[in-house]
Amino acid sequence: MLIVKKFGGTSVADKERIFNVARRIEEDYKKGNEIVVVLSAMGKQTDILIQMAKDINPNASKREMDMLLTTGEQVSVALMAMALDALGIPAVSLNAFQVAMHTTSVYSNARIKRIDTDRIRNELQNRRVVLVTGFQGVNKFDDYTTLGRGGSDTTAVALAAALHADKCEIYTDVDGVYTADPRMVKTARKLNEITYDEMLELASLGAGVLHNRSVEMAKKYGVQLVVRSSINKTEGTVVKEVVNMEKMLVSGVAADKNTARIAVVGLEDQPGVAFKLFNHLARHNINVDIILQSVGRDGTKDISFTVKEDDLDEAVATIERHRQGSLKCQKVDVEKGVAKVSIVGAGMMSNTGVAAKMFEALYDVGVNIKMISTSEIRVTVLIDEAHVEKAMNAVHEKFLLSQM
Amino acid sequence: MLIVKKFGGTSVADKERIFNVARRIEEDYKKGNEIVVVLSAMGKQTDILIQMAKDINPNASKREMDMLLTTGEQVSVALMAMALDALGIPAVSLNAFQVAMHTTSVYSNARIKRIDTDRIRNELQNRRVVLVTGFQGVNKFDDYTTLGRGGSDTTAVALAAALHADKCEIYTDVDGVYTADPRMVKTARKLNEITYDEMLELASLGAGVLHNRSVEMAKKYGVQLVVRSSINKTEGTVVKEVVNMEKMLVSGVAADKNTARIAVVGLEDQPGVAFKLFNHLARHNINVDIILQSVGRDGTKDISFTVKEDDLDEAVATIERHRQGSLKCQKVDVEKGVAKVSIVGAGMMSNTGVAAKMFEALYDVGVNIKMISTSEIRVTVLIDEAHVEKAMNAVHEKFLLSQM
Repeated sequence: MLIVKKFGGTSVADKERIFNVARRIEEDYKKGNEIVVVLSAMGKQTDILIQMAKDINPNASKREMDMLLTTGEQVSVALMAMALDALGIPAVSLNAFQVAMHTTSVYSNARIKRIDTDRIRNELQNRRVVLVTGFQGVNKFDDYTTLGRGGSDTTAVALAAALHADKCEIYTDVDGVYTADPRMVKTARKLNEITYDEMLELASLGAGVLHNRSVEMAKKYGVQLVVRSSINKTEGTVVKEVVNMEKMLVSGVAADKNTARIAVVGLEDQPGVAFKLFNHLARHNINVDIILQSVGRDGTKDISFTVKEDDLDEAVATIERHRQGSLKCQKVDVEKGVAKVSIVGAGMMSNTGVAAKMFEALYDVGVNIKMISTSEIRVTVLIDEAHVEKAMNAVHEKFLLSQM
Repeated sequence: MLIVKKFGGTSVADKERIFNVARRIEEDYKKGNEIVVVLSAMGKQTDILIQMAKDINPNASKREMDMLLTTGEQVSVALMAMALDALGIPAVSLNAFQVAMHTTSVYSNARIKRIDTDRIRNELQNRRVVLVTGFQGVNKFDDYTTLGRGGSDTTAVALAAALHADKCEIYTDVDGVYTADPRMVKTARKLNEITYDEMLELASLGAGVLHNRSVEMAKKYGVQLVVRSSINKTEGTVVKEVVNMEKMLVSGVAADKNTARIAVVGLEDQPGVAFKLFNHLARHNINVDIILQSVGRDGTKDISFTVKEDDLDEAVATIERHRQGSLKCQKVDVEKGVAKVSIVGAGMMSNTGVAAKMFEALYDVGVNIKMISTSEIRVTVLIDEAHVEKAMNAVHEKFLLSQM
C-alpha cells in the first residue's frame, strides 16, 4: 500500500515526539508499505518566525514571509529523516523545490496546481520513506509560496491524489471525528465513518479537525482520508464518498460561538438593496452566514444576518459608511452573545422531519431559536450563547447519537 | 558599480544589527550602485541546529545535515529583505535553488561549479538589492549542499566572479588585515593593501580573517576583495594581485599556537622512507607543515615535522600502527607547547637578507629557533609557545611595521 501520512506541529515539537512519530512510520514501513510523510513546522516555530518578522517589519511583504516561514517545515523533515535513520529506516527529506510542488502565484495563500511525482516515486522505489515539507510550494517565478491555514493537510491530500495513494492519514491530537465536542457533550461518540460533505459542513462550523480545502480536494480526487490520533492507535474516522447504509440520519452536532448578529432595520424596499448590502461586505472579505429578511414598518424592510464575531466591527463600520449613500436605513442593531448550533448528516437528504425533531429537542429544554438556516445535509439554529451546552446535549440525545 | 557584500552571522545576530547592516546597504544603494548581499545564518543559529541534530542522531547523514543547516541562511536573507523594505529599499531574497548555485555532489563540503546569473541580473535590473544565502548550493541530485568552513566568503567571491562585480566586500568584526594580531602586538597597524598570495599565507597561518578558499578563488578570477569592519566605516584592507611599489618587504607577522612537533627517530636510511611516512599521514587527512630531515646515528635518519595540535594524537597513532611494517624506527618523540611565528611579504621575493633579519630579531630577545621553513613570500620559525608574544613584538619592531 502507498500511504501518505500527515503529522502536525505538536507531533514533532520535541525529540521525544519526533521519535514517537518515527516509530509509527517504522511500523508501517516494515509491513512493506510505501510511505510518504508530510510534516508541519515544529511546535510554535511558525509563530516564533512570524514574531521575528513582525519585530523587524510589521508590514513585511508576503513574498518574504513565505521565504521565512518555509524554513520551519524544512527543519522538521530533516530532523525526522535523521530520527528514522537512527532507527535504521532509510529516509529522505524533500522541500517544495525538490518535490516540485507547483502552486499559483499568490504568496501566503497559494493553491497547489501540479505536483511532479518523479523524484518521490524514485525515492519510494529505492525503499526510502519520503518526508515532504507541508504548507509550502513554488510558484512560476521560482519563489516559495505557502498554502495558508491548514496548508499541511492540503499538501498531504494533494500528494495522495497525485501519487494515487491508497489512503491519506491525518494525525491529530483527537481520536477522530466525534458526534459532538466531547468537552460539551459527555456522551459524544467517535464516528467510524463520515462522508466528505458531512465533514465539510462540520469543518465550516468550526468543529473541524480537518481544513475545508483539504476535504474538498479529497472529495474531488476521491482520496480516502483517515483522521486518527498521533498519540494512541485507535482506528480513527474514515472520510469517504459514501458510508454504510444503516447510517443514522444525523452524524453530529456542532456549535460555533464565534458569531454575532447584525440587523439592518428600515431599509428602503427597493430592488437591489440586499445585493448592495452584501456586496459591500463581500468587498471587505466579510463572510455572511444565516440571512433573514422581513417586512418592516412603513413600507421598509429589515435584513438580519450573522457574521463571525471577529468580523463584527468591520462589518458595522462598512455599513455605517454607506448609510448616507446606497444603504439608507433607520438603524443598525448588533447582538453579541449568540451561537450557532448545527446538526449534520447525509441521511437528512432522503428523510423528512429532521429539522422539526431538532426544534422539538430545543423546545423541550426551553431554548429559544433566533434564526434558522438549512442546507441539504445541515440544519443550523442561532440561539443564546449561554444555552449552547444544554442545546447540544438535548439535540445529541434526541438523535440518539451516543447509542449507535 | 556592482558590489557584492558579505556579512557574517554576528552582523545579523539580532534586530539592531540587522538594521545596522540594512542602513549600510541603503547608503551604497542610494549612490546608484547595484548591490548583491551574501549572508550567513544569524548568530549561533548554525550551532543550535547542529546541536538539535546531534541530539536526535549523533551520526546524522551529511545530506540531511545540509538540508537542516541551509534553513539558517534562508531566515537571515528573508529578515534582511524585510528590514530593507522597512527602510524603503526594494529587495529580494534568494536561496541556492533560486540563484541556481550549482556545486559538486559532496555534502557538507561541496565546491561551487557554476552559478546561473539570470535571476540575479533580472532583479538587479529592477533596482532591487539581491540577498543571497551564503554557504549553500544545490548538487546534480537536486539536493542542498553546504560549502564547509568559510563557506559564505566563498559564496560571495564566486558571485562577484560570476557577475563580474567591481568589488567584493567582506565585512568582519575587525577593521581589516593587520601587520600582526593587535592583541599580541600593541603597535600593530592596519594594512591598506595586501596581495592575494600574502593573504593566503596569512590565512593558512591562522591569522586569516578570510578563508583560504575564498582568497584562492578571488585570485583565480581577479576579484578585488575588501576586508572591512561591519561596525565602523574605516576603509579596510584591499586584497588584490599587485600592490603599490613602495611596499615594505614584510606585510605582517603571524603566529599559530595550534602546533605540535613529532620527531621520528632512527628510521632506516632507505629510499622511499619519507614518502611512506607522509603518505600514511596524508591518507588520514593529516596536514604536515615544517619538515626537517637529518642524519641519525648508525646509518639511520631522523625526520621531524609539525602538525596541528588537534591532529597530533591521530598522527602518532598512525605512525605507531606502521612501526612494525613499513616504518621501522627507534622511537617517536612528541613535543607540545610550541608555536609557529611567520613573516609574510610579497617584497621578500626580490630582496635578500629578510630571513636573516628575522633571526637577528629573535636572537636579540633570546628566543631559540627550533625549526625553519620558508616559501617565496614567507619565513616561518618554530619556537617555544611561551615566547610567542615577545618574538612577535621583536620581529614586528625589526621590520618597522608600525611606522609605515
